[in-house]
Amino acid sequence: MYDIIVIGSGPAGLSAGMNACVRNKKVKIIGNNIKSSYLYKAENVDNYLGFKNITGKKMMEKFFKHIQDMEVEYQEGKVDEIYSMGDFFSINANNDFIDAKSIIIATGLAKNNFFKGEEEYIGKGVSYCATCDGNLYRGKNIIIIGESKECEEDVKFLSEIAKNIVFIPKYKNVKVDIENVEIKKGNIKEIVGEDFANGIIIDKDKIDADGIFIIRNTVPIAKLIDGLEIEKNSIKVNRFMETNIKGVFAAGDCTGRPFQVAKAVGEGLIAGLQASTYISKLEVKKMEVI
Amino acid sequence: MYDIIVIGSGPAGLSAGMNACVRNKKVKIIGNNIKSSYLYKAENVDNYLGFKNITGKKMMEKFFKHIQDMEVEYQEGKVDEIYSMGDFFSINANNDFIDAKSIIIATGLAKNNFFKGEEEYIGKGVSYCATCDGNLYRGKNIIIIGESKECEEDVKFLSEIAKNIVFIPKYKNVKVDIENVEIKKGNIKEIVGEDFANGIIIDKDKIDADGIFIIRNTVPIAKLIDGLEIEKNSIKVNRFMETNIKGVFAAGDCTGRPFQVAKAVGEGLIAGLQASTYISKLEVKKMEVI
Repeated sequence: MYDIIVIGSGPAGLSAGMNACVRNKKVKIIGNNIKSSYLYKAENVDNYLGFKNITGKKMMEKFFKHIQDMEVEYQEGKVDEIYSMGDFFSINANNDFIDAKSIIIATGLAKNNFFKGEEEYIGKGVSYCATCDGNLYRGKNIIIIGESKECEEDVKFLSEIAKNIVFIPKYKNVKVDIENVEIKKGNIKEIVGEDFANGIIIDKDKIDADGIFIIRNTVPIAKLIDGLEIEKNSIKVNRFMETNIKGVFAAGDCTGRPFQVAKAVGEGLIAGLQASTYISKLEVKKMEVI
Repeated sequence: MYDIIVIGSGPAGLSAGMNACVRNKKVKIIGNNIKSSYLYKAENVDNYLGFKNITGKKMMEKFFKHIQDMEVEYQEGKVDEIYSMGDFFSINANNDFIDAKSIIIATGLAKNNFFKGEEEYIGKGVSYCATCDGNLYRGKNIIIIGESKECEEDVKFLSEIAKNIVFIPKYKNVKVDIENVEIKKGNIKEIVGEDFANGIIIDKDKIDADGIFIIRNTVPIAKLIDGLEIEKNSIKVNRFMETNIKGVFAAGDCTGRPFQVAKAVGEGLIAGLQASTYISKLEVKKMEVI
């Protein structure tokens, strides 16, 4: 059981994890490879105090080296869902379940590239998590839309459950060769259905299916944990980086503008310290009960 | 007329000024010598993402070099008071008046070492600003308590106005030799009076006076500008670093815990960008009026 799981490996997540570690909490950061962060691709960053004229790549490497030097536990991976278990949380990370007393969400900018019709069918035939919902489609026909190479694991997993799969990869160098998986390329125009999604329009064709899996690098924040309050497409937090769910904190771009390194690092620090204080109070309470 | 004046030269002030400068605003930072900041004296700072194992001195020097490289205007000095002038502000900095359309307060940790009785007599015989209130004591007897060498300028100024002065320096290497100024050393126990302050208790003696000037390195935040909302001894701000006064922003330790570099730098960035947006909106409004 971890004290704190930080979800996200951008500046906010690294700052949060590092500061919780400084406070001697059992903490782990789970995030994508740092190369996939927006910052990594930035040509030049000038306005994070202390570094002038530095590439995003070099900055992210410095940040990552900092948490490595501090021996903060780190796991490359993607979190699909967080379950509230009463007084702790269970996190599905790459189909492994990890428990923690508190969570810091630092998943970065919520990308808004929903397909037409997608939001309408979330939970009604549209799913983001193979492990969570795969069994609902045993022996049925499904479509999988994959944003990056990491989804191939999910394609393999679902191919063992579903009858036939149409797989639409949105990346290059696809390496999938499975009997019941047909690879298709094209522009996805819309997700269609009636009460439930029943297919997609790709270019000018319709493909029918019983369910559609969309495997993105980042799960839409509203889907990450039930009941999380969202405001203007960002996680609603107060100045202590507390969300509306007790024990769940958020920091960085996912809490809204400005989308800047210094804001992310500052909020990460606050979330890391605040979550540590939350854990310490839990421990005091537990002692009182004993 | 400046767009933005930043008061304070710690991490928050430097980050605010630098980011406003990036946004092409006419900005100036006014602050104490960086050597006087708390950070400068820190033996080791480990938890500002990107720098591990660095002395506070080296960090402040890097921060200051950053704003110098960006050619942010900087003035060493102390701001005594800010006057609201309707649609702009007038700032008394070392007895020079500077006008600005908006203000960012980043004066650091509000020091709470009030003398006993001090708060009770603020504005009733206790003053923090020689230029502002000196003339009220023409031909009268006053006490001056000085925290550092910088107050000697004020002692000289007040000696030309007041009748007799008892000067109590709280620093070493005092260089004051003025006929009507008596230097006294000792522990200040209390500021006393009835409706108005009428003296101080120093060790076991009482010194009588018509007024008491306390010249500190930092002016108590509540005295800096009339009507500024304070909560738990910190400036009350929202997530945009806006105070209750339109055009006045705050960032860093003066807005409350945690007192950490990353929080200060992040808040400085937000205040800098938010003040810039405020200025841009003012300009649009002005164009509409024309």
